[in-house]
Amino acid sequence: MADLQAILDDIHAELAPRLGEGKVADYIPQLAHIDPKKFGMSLITVDGAVHKVGDCDEPFSIQSISKVFTLTMALGKHGETTWNRVGREPSGSAFNSIVQLENEGGKPRNPFINAGAIAVSDLVLAGHTPREAIGEIVRFVRYLADDETIVIDPAVAKSEEATGFRNAALANFMRAFGKLTHPVEHVLGVYFHHCALAMTCTQLAHAGLFLAAGGSNPLTGHSVVSSQRARRINALMLTCGHYDGSGEFAYRVGLPGKSGVGGGILAVAPGKAAVTVWSPGLNHNGNSLLGSLALEMFAARTGWSVFGSA
Amino acid sequence: MADLQAILDDIHAELAPRLGEGKVADYIPQLAHIDPKKFGMSLITVDGAVHKVGDCDEPFSIQSISKVFTLTMALGKHGETTWNRVGREPSGSAFNSIVQLENEGGKPRNPFINAGAIAVSDLVLAGHTPREAIGEIVRFVRYLADDETIVIDPAVAKSEEATGFRNAALANFMRAFGKLTHPVEHVLGVYFHHCALAMTCTQLAHAGLFLAAGGSNPLTGHSVVSSQRARRINALMLTCGHYDGSGEFAYRVGLPGKSGVGGGILAVAPGKAAVTVWSPGLNHNGNSLLGSLALEMFAARTGWSVFGSA
Amino acid sequence: MADLQAILDDIHAELAPRLGEGKVADYIPQLAHIDPKKFGMSLITVDGAVHKVGDCDEPFSIQSISKVFTLTMALGKHGETTWNRVGREPSGSAFNSIVQLENEGGKPRNPFINAGAIAVSDLVLAGHTPREAIGEIVRFVRYLADDETIVIDPAVAKSEEATGFRNAALANFMRAFGKLTHPVEHVLGVYFHHCALAMTCTQLAHAGLFLAAGGSNPLTGHSVVSSQRARRINALMLTCGHYDGSGEFAYRVGLPGKSGVGGGILAVAPGKAAVTVWSPGLNHNGNSLLGSLALEMFAARTGWSVFGSA
Amino acid sequence: MADLQAILDDIHAELAPRLGEGKVADYIPQLAHIDPKKFGMSLITVDGAVHKVGDCDEPFSIQSISKVFTLTMALGKHGETTWNRVGREPSGSAFNSIVQLENEGGKPRNPFINAGAIAVSDLVLAGHTPREAIGEIVRFVRYLADDETIVIDPAVAKSEEATGFRNAALANFMRAFGKLTHPVEHVLGVYFHHCALAMTCTQLAHAGLFLAAGGSNPLTGHSVVSSQRARRINALMLTCGHYDGSGEFAYRVGLPGKSGVGGGILAVAPGKAAVTVWSPGLNHNGNSLLGSLALEMFAARTGWSVFGSA
Repeated sequence: MADLQAILDDIHAELAPRLGEGKVADYIPQLAHIDPKKFGMSLITVDGAVHKVGDCDEPFSIQSISKVFTLTMALGKHGETTWNRVGREPSGSAFNSIVQLENEGGKPRNPFINAGAIAVSDLVLAGHTPREAIGEIVRFVRYLADDETIVIDPAVAKSEEATGFRNAALANFMRAFGKLTHPVEHVLGVYFHHCALAMTCTQLAHAGLFLAAGGSNPLTGHSVVSSQRARRINALMLTCGHYDGSGEFAYRVGLPGKSGVGGGILAVAPGKAAVTVWSPGLNHNGNSLLGSLALEMFAARTGWSVFGSA
Repeated sequence: MADLQAILDDIHAELAPRLGEGKVADYIPQLAHIDPKKFGMSLITVDGAVHKVGDCDEPFSIQSISKVFTLTMALGKHGETTWNRVGREPSGSAFNSIVQLENEGGKPRNPFINAGAIAVSDLVLAGHTPREAIGEIVRFVRYLADDETIVIDPAVAKSEEATGFRNAALANFMRAFGKLTHPVEHVLGVYFHHCALAMTCTQLAHAGLFLAAGGSNPLTGHSVVSSQRARRINALMLTCGHYDGSGEFAYRVGLPGKSGVGGGILAVAPGKAAVTVWSPGLNHNGNSLLGSLALEMFAARTGWSVFGSA
Repeated sequence: MADLQAILDDIHAELAPRLGEGKVADYIPQLAHIDPKKFGMSLITVDGAVHKVGDCDEPFSIQSISKVFTLTMALGKHGETTWNRVGREPSGSAFNSIVQLENEGGKPRNPFINAGAIAVSDLVLAGHTPREAIGEIVRFVRYLADDETIVIDPAVAKSEEATGFRNAALANFMRAFGKLTHPVEHVLGVYFHHCALAMTCTQLAHAGLFLAAGGSNPLTGHSVVSSQRARRINALMLTCGHYDGSGEFAYRVGLPGKSGVGGGILAVAPGKAAVTVWSPGLNHNGNSLLGSLALEMFAARTGWSVFGSA
Repeated sequence: MADLQAILDDIHAELAPRLGEGKVADYIPQLAHIDPKKFGMSLITVDGAVHKVGDCDEPFSIQSISKVFTLTMALGKHGETTWNRVGREPSGSAFNSIVQLENEGGKPRNPFINAGAIAVSDLVLAGHTPREAIGEIVRFVRYLADDETIVIDPAVAKSEEATGFRNAALANFMRAFGKLTHPVEHVLGVYFHHCALAMTCTQLAHAGLFLAAGGSNPLTGHSVVSSQRARRINALMLTCGHYDGSGEFAYRVGLPGKSGVGGGILAVAPGKAAVTVWSPGLNHNGNSLLGSLALEMFAARTGWSVFGSA
């Protein structure tokens, strides 16, 4: 096996001159004020080896990456009936498009676009109060990462709530189609809070490791989902994890991954490792520009790809 | 390794009572008159082992599966500039939708929807006459399958041409945006002819084997593409190979695949094998109903999935 | 001039056997419980002659007809700058479509689709509280109709508010594009209340008479708008007043008109009269089925059409 | 009545400094090479008075204005069944949009967008050869204008045919939905030829006079259509005659009108006159920029508006 630490170090060194590229999300001050030159990567193998570089232990707003965890929870609560409420197809449009909802009766195309994740928040609520549901999400992520220090950034959640008119539009629209069962404000409360989870690259790699390891976290021995479900979540990440740049990520990187507007990406090399990257500047699809590039370099150098070996 | 022949036999036996399900394509008589109970599977491993069952050696119209081969040719002729003419993202709409073209300046989303494959036909023409380009495609597929008997069914090509108004609309629309460089009739001629290739499951598995084996056909030793390009074609098949059912196929089967309206599917298990199936009845997305199911059963029983082991 | 009373009587008699046709709006109980066989017409000429028939003096929920009055107010407050916030083109889609908003930067196509009327409510607010704005609207409509008994039905307003998720989606969506200047709840409060105005056919004909009479109400002498503005509001009613059935209404009736989901229609014969009809059953475009037919019969028999004489 | 000649003269004088504004259609050389400073107006009253100014007797390519005449012919041949093939609603999108066709089963929204006019050409063919149908159209327009010198510009027709890929896309798309009954090339041949009619402002005003005069041409005594049909064609012109600028034209001018990309507009003042204008520079909706303005000035000064008097 390649020297994984050396690969991470090389990527970091090669990208150093480019740090700051891309456009940092600026729709809330908490994201707008992030230093655009931050860059971190962490990698945890299914054997438990940990490699990391740069700002890998600094928490950032994981944003949409949290959708992987809430989807996992919804599947745990509702099983395959989850798919009555949200589809499994790439959307072919922007992360926050409402057009598709109108054309398809209020059913979001997949759980990783905003509308789909809002539907998943409704499923996670499952009759509980927003506070209870949010608490449950935090506990679940702490359990996945085996780290009790993980918290939601309340300022981020509050800012999202104050400016999230488009998400409110999506939620109200789905509610109009009878596709949400809880009050719109409750659902949005859950959604805005789980997107405000703050995690480090290393915590995130820990939390995503179960997807690389057949459904169980090999470090803790925690069984999270069946191996079939792990594969299926990976499939969803590959086809839908990068909004309207999912095809591009599959083409260039060749690993299941989920990005967040905070600049983070969680990638999964099945049977091998979870790899995370953080670089705040985004490309035109809303995915981390250098983060995507770093993972492309990583995949090329390790030869890791779900689509064949190098 | 599982007993692959036994798995194929079991799938055949289990599906026998359901043969005839789905809706056979009826837009041209040559497809409409196919016996809906036909069913065949072929599998060729990268080690050269061949397993097969049912009507696996009866030629059928491979239709859109041919788009994998013309894309491979276009990449060979034009390299990455191919992507100036066609995108790499799932379309989020039906195989023959024209809406996306209008919204995105006449550039098709990917090479596997009809518009994208028509753009690829234009690239394959590359200044030649339609007759020359069609001849080149046939020679290429024969080379891939190592089988000089493969031919285009002229009656199918002629019927497609006589009824292909929607494809003519797509081609004229792209031409209006300056996205085709050859006369519309030439491009359509190439397109209709390569879709009319008639192949057996076994021939098709042979022809697709290079995608499972890092770009070279291990049976013939022919080098077709680099391992990187093979992985990338696989990525495109996974994200876009089943039209608006691509996410579903990735979720259920977990292997790159390309379907055709004739009821065939070519699936690729990287590093392991090429697997093909033929069953004419289609589901609502235009993909083989029992063919998809057969591959889902196959993936479950072999544990083959690009998204992790069972 | 034809005997207008006889024409109304004849129309009433001819339609009597069909009363109850169409589908009564059922999204709130206050509308769902209306007797579908209600039918009334009122006509007031610019000379002050009043003709009426049937349930012409029973109040009903005027719903979207109120949009004519709020637009008139917005134009009074903001003049032509109103059109920076809302367009003047037919929408080519359903009354509550959100697709157009996404494609056109959150600017509604015209003031008579829901999104456009919500934008107009924002303009009517003009820094005031919802209560003040609603009060001002009621006073304006009373002034137009010269009738202090006109009120908003609070049960209707409350029901609209409790179920108006789609309108909430539209408002939040526009707010996300920066197209609303007041809090979403305030804007929706104004919108839901003015739609809940209860008026009789006769009151409505009074209130709309200024549009037939060059901007002034000949009965009261009240000057409402300039003759140019009256013509322009009529033009908007003709091109956009019946949602995606506006072309049909222009074709069949040939008069500017505005319909409401409560089954009312206000039509304007410039220089001649205001004509109103109420019949709760709706056609597939959400316009009164028999009301449209009654006006078609009326136009044919009077020979009144803006497009030429009989 | 105002001094109509003086009004035309004044408009001409006031617009003189602005001649050349707007963007001349450049998709075929025959239009691109027109002098952008051309400007003419003609007016013929129902009493037979003729007023004109500027380049009013120079032939120009009437383009889409011809759609009024072919619609009139189709209605003559097929009556109200015409509407089984084409709708009567504003499109809410560009003149050559194909999106609407896909969403609405290949039925164009109205006879004045390109797709709708192509459907009308199919109806005009009615089993004849393109040559016969084109001949019939020319004879009909000559009859309307009482002028045997009117011809089709063959160079324009040929250029349209050579570059009309988008129209070919529309025609093939409709054919795919079974909405055309003649061969696509025949239909397009008719369409491209009638759009290539060359007429002067004065000839055009003559030809459109029947629409102002209840269906008959008062100069010749020729009866063309019933008064009801004349009103209905006017209604269609008002709601759909200026593509996605129809609402704007109704708002500003207040008369039924039909524009062509050659810079001409035919407007109808029911009961009063037909008015035509020609100025080649177009606005962003593809309608004559100064032509629209000239008609707005004309309507303001005459007080002619279907929506009320000044």
